[in-house]
Amino acid sequence: MKASQFLITTLKEAPADAEVVSHQLMTRAGMIRKLGAGIYNYMPMGLRVIQKVEAIVREEMNRAGAVEMTMPVVQPAELWQETGRFEKMGPELLRIQDRHERDYVIQPTSEEVVTDVARQELRSYKQLPKNLYQIQTKFRDERRPRFGLMRGREFIMKDAYSFDRDEAGAKASYQVMAAAYRRIFDRFGLKYRAVAADSGAIGGDLSEEFQVIAATGEDAIVYCPASDYAANMEKAEALAPAGPRPAPANPMVKTPTPGKSTCADVAEYLGVPLATTIKSLVLATDELNEAGEVVKSQVWLLLLRGDHDMNEVKVGKVPGLDKGFRFASIPEIDAHFGCKPGYLGPVGLKKPLKIVADREVAVMADWICGSNEPDFHTTGVNWGRDLPEPDLVADLRNVVEGDPSPDGKGPLAIERGIEVGHVFYLGTKYSKAMNATFLDTDGKPKHFEMGCYGIGITRLPAAAIEQNHDERGIVWPDAIAPFTVVVCPVGADRSEAVKAAADELYAGLLAAGVDVIIDDRGERPGAMFADWELIGVPHRVTIGDRGLKEGMVEYQHRRDAAATKVPATEALAFVKGRLSA
Amino acid sequence: MKASQFLITTLKEAPADAEVVSHQLMTRAGMIRKLGAGIYNYMPMGLRVIQKVEAIVREEMNRAGAVEMTMPVVQPAELWQETGRFEKMGPELLRIQDRHERDYVIQPTSEEVVTDVARQELRSYKQLPKNLYQIQTKFRDERRPRFGLMRGREFIMKDAYSFDRDEAGAKASYQVMAAAYRRIFDRFGLKYRAVAADSGAIGGDLSEEFQVIAATGEDAIVYCPASDYAANMEKAEALAPAGPRPAPANPMVKTPTPGKSTCADVAEYLGVPLATTIKSLVLATDELNEAGEVVKSQVWLLLLRGDHDMNEVKVGKVPGLDKGFRFASIPEIDAHFGCKPGYLGPVGLKKPLKIVADREVAVMADWICGSNEPDFHTTGVNWGRDLPEPDLVADLRNVVEGDPSPDGKGPLAIERGIEVGHVFYLGTKYSKAMNATFLDTDGKPKHFEMGCYGIGITRLPAAAIEQNHDERGIVWPDAIAPFTVVVCPVGADRSEAVKAAADELYAGLLAAGVDVIIDDRGERPGAMFADWELIGVPHRVTIGDRGLKEGMVEYQHRRDAAATKVPATEALAFVKGRLSA
Repeated sequence: MKASQFLITTLKEAPADAEVVSHQLMTRAGMIRKLGAGIYNYMPMGLRVIQKVEAIVREEMNRAGAVEMTMPVVQPAELWQETGRFEKMGPELLRIQDRHERDYVIQPTSEEVVTDVARQELRSYKQLPKNLYQIQTKFRDERRPRFGLMRGREFIMKDAYSFDRDEAGAKASYQVMAAAYRRIFDRFGLKYRAVAADSGAIGGDLSEEFQVIAATGEDAIVYCPASDYAANMEKAEALAPAGPRPAPANPMVKTPTPGKSTCADVAEYLGVPLATTIKSLVLATDELNEAGEVVKSQVWLLLLRGDHDMNEVKVGKVPGLDKGFRFASIPEIDAHFGCKPGYLGPVGLKKPLKIVADREVAVMADWICGSNEPDFHTTGVNWGRDLPEPDLVADLRNVVEGDPSPDGKGPLAIERGIEVGHVFYLGTKYSKAMNATFLDTDGKPKHFEMGCYGIGITRLPAAAIEQNHDERGIVWPDAIAPFTVVVCPVGADRSEAVKAAADELYAGLLAAGVDVIIDDRGERPGAMFADWELIGVPHRVTIGDRGLKEGMVEYQHRRDAAATKVPATEALAFVKGRLSA
Repeated sequence: MKASQFLITTLKEAPADAEVVSHQLMTRAGMIRKLGAGIYNYMPMGLRVIQKVEAIVREEMNRAGAVEMTMPVVQPAELWQETGRFEKMGPELLRIQDRHERDYVIQPTSEEVVTDVARQELRSYKQLPKNLYQIQTKFRDERRPRFGLMRGREFIMKDAYSFDRDEAGAKASYQVMAAAYRRIFDRFGLKYRAVAADSGAIGGDLSEEFQVIAATGEDAIVYCPASDYAANMEKAEALAPAGPRPAPANPMVKTPTPGKSTCADVAEYLGVPLATTIKSLVLATDELNEAGEVVKSQVWLLLLRGDHDMNEVKVGKVPGLDKGFRFASIPEIDAHFGCKPGYLGPVGLKKPLKIVADREVAVMADWICGSNEPDFHTTGVNWGRDLPEPDLVADLRNVVEGDPSPDGKGPLAIERGIEVGHVFYLGTKYSKAMNATFLDTDGKPKHFEMGCYGIGITRLPAAAIEQNHDERGIVWPDAIAPFTVVVCPVGADRSEAVKAAADELYAGLLAAGVDVIIDDRGERPGAMFADWELIGVPHRVTIGDRGLKEGMVEYQHRRDAAATKVPATEALAFVKGRLSA
């Protein structure tokens, strides 16, 4: 490609609304242009990256035996009504009407359509397993789109859906995809982790997120440096502490803590470690009648160590809380504790409730909690002696750095990531909702066992940039760079030798199948180098008159601090040697 | 590809709503599945064809120097309001609102967005010329979608837009695209014609349609077999007849023609050629005031030979009719003719009106027309003698077979076609509406001169099928076939030799880079052959036990009436030799 024939539209300044570095750099490098909130033009420079991402994904999906098709962007509402998602999904599902006032949605994902395809086309067990995928435009009407391609409204997703005879088959299909995803992410040339994720109502352990590691990532990733254990924060288990609960050592004493309504304030005020305090969280569950009216409510007290955070996903799995819960109302709290929040505790309740202790709390002795009286806390509280044992003990909290890894291989570490892929075992959730069946070996209809597998095609470049950039711009891995090599002639307008040498190297690289661009725009060297460092092309060869007189050109990798002189006659071979396989 | 790993979903019957052969065959061959009115899943077999079409288009667009980008499917209404199309376009423009009740459209085309890109990114004449294109999902909310991918609502279009400094540049860019389109359509392997089309309000001659020839095509294509003249019916000029008007030979006579209100009936009744009759078409034009109220109307009488059809595009170019016209009302006709339609004529009018004669009519003598009295026609009518010469003479009619070609190279022929591409010089229509300018050499802002260039990516396969099919199914040209070669082992489950020979040929073709599928589904030969003939894979090799015993396999091109025996050892070379380059 010749730069003069391409469209290079770099900017000195990032737009005011670009909060994250990938959004800033993709805009400045001329890769995207905002057309509306969360809606972007993929400019030529950005589209090249997206197309390289797509090509890698397509190749590996095909290699894994998945079959590509394309489902419509505009989908009839009827299918979405079959699963109830037309009503249940929030406003992020963009609902539209055509000229005949029939309802449609713009696809945010395609479980309904692909399940409809399966129930029509996959009629016999002989056609299974089958994995259908598409790389297609999606739309989610986010309330607050931001961060450029990181959280856009219109985006491109690769979504795949596997169909199997039975659970064993579905799990095998899942593993095929999980392995394909590892190959895909390896090929992108990014640091990533496949982390176990919560599988929600489906249950089981077959849910993994593919997280690109970046300090700016939204998600906390838990991993064990000494093993391959990795999970997201929702999923990572906090083990039950080893050893028995210590015996009580102190008497229970009610202590004034005027105005100290948080564990941190109380610990500081009393001069004790935060880890000796316990926080009380009051939840409630409702029993409804057929009309959807609340007929009975139950209040729950959850106890966590003062320095731990509640994990909502884990709480949602506690028996009794697993059908949905809410935070208790002030009247409910008052009825059970006779006190306002800030000084609550499990001792001396006005009215019984269900107490769930975090695993850590269950083995603590001589702890501190609220006295159910404003401005007072109680120290030296002990299970069994001062209050009954908890009704339930469960893992209720987020893990923290240093917690033991669930696989017993050492302490856990935490880093941040950006989710760009997800593999998920769906079971029969959609096939049952849509009565999608095939005829099994016994001639009887059976619901498909399904899995779904997504990759955020347009999110991936943004994540790659969050991980790979410096103060001058983007640093692309070779595999997804818009161009692999840029040839920069300096003063080609003044020197025939420079122009000839640059054209020759460019032609040589092109002939070798290298994705190369030559900057023939006639820009001054400073502006030219700044552009290519901003755009992040990994390999640059600079050809100037002074160097050529000594028979040399300059090679510089985008990560190199300085250029390397290379004999002009060896430049082609040198650059080819530097490209990743 | 192994058929068992692919998704083959052929059907014995076409759906009831499939009216045209391409819709029937694409559905039966499992290439598309209807999801809603005019909305289709592109199934794996169909997507392969679409992707091959896309690849050829992309290659040739890039070769022609166009730069690919992607514009959003969901576009803010503001841009469409700038050109007025948000209001002016009919309901085929799908208008939607997001959660914040802001207006958007689903793109049916992208002039507005690309012009917005240009006015932001193309700031200097140094960046011109530039041609930006995309291959992207479009939506047109057709009132009556039908014919499968021929007239769908959601479809894929390649749309390109050129930006130039001046008209000469724009015309050069247009010619570059017209040449690229010829390469693209040559590569598809289809019979097509590039035909001159009307350029509407833009004027000039720079508008060509690319029509795939097919007997079932919606459009009539006019061409000269002895030259390269070709135009669509709207555009093709009917030359003025040679030689002077003959002198009157007969007297003017009013003749009873009871109940004969059409030229054909009159000619038959009087026993004269239809070409001696003249039909009277009564139009009207309105003059409006600023409030849009009609202040004055003018009635026009258009005269065409009885066997000719009016061409609305040509009529719309007649001076005085070129601002819009309508058919006259019954009261208007009565006021001018004192007679109801069916017996109208230009002689003896009650009230004067403008008479426009078709070029052919202007040189006729002794013609027949209505007498402005029910059940009477007048014969022997002559210009000058019986009525004044017409106010205007113009080309008002569609050409017919045998008319002289406008280039003087012989008679015209007519065939039918399906429009799948269009190149069009736009001028400054959009750049002026959106005030899209660049700084020219003199430092002053100037409006871009534009062109637009479309190819119906998903329509092309349908057009290819209308042109290439037989009673057994589709016959794909090699370039866009879903697979180029199919290897059909017969009885591989019973014969190791068959399986081994088929696998070896398959492996050899794969290694040679041939797009080959092997049918390992274990279907019976009849069903297997029927599938591949329906799907239309151009080259088939059948390997069976009986043939192998003689060392032979069978090759059959989809167009061949019978198979050719080929030594098994030469099969690979033989097939490779049969593939188009």
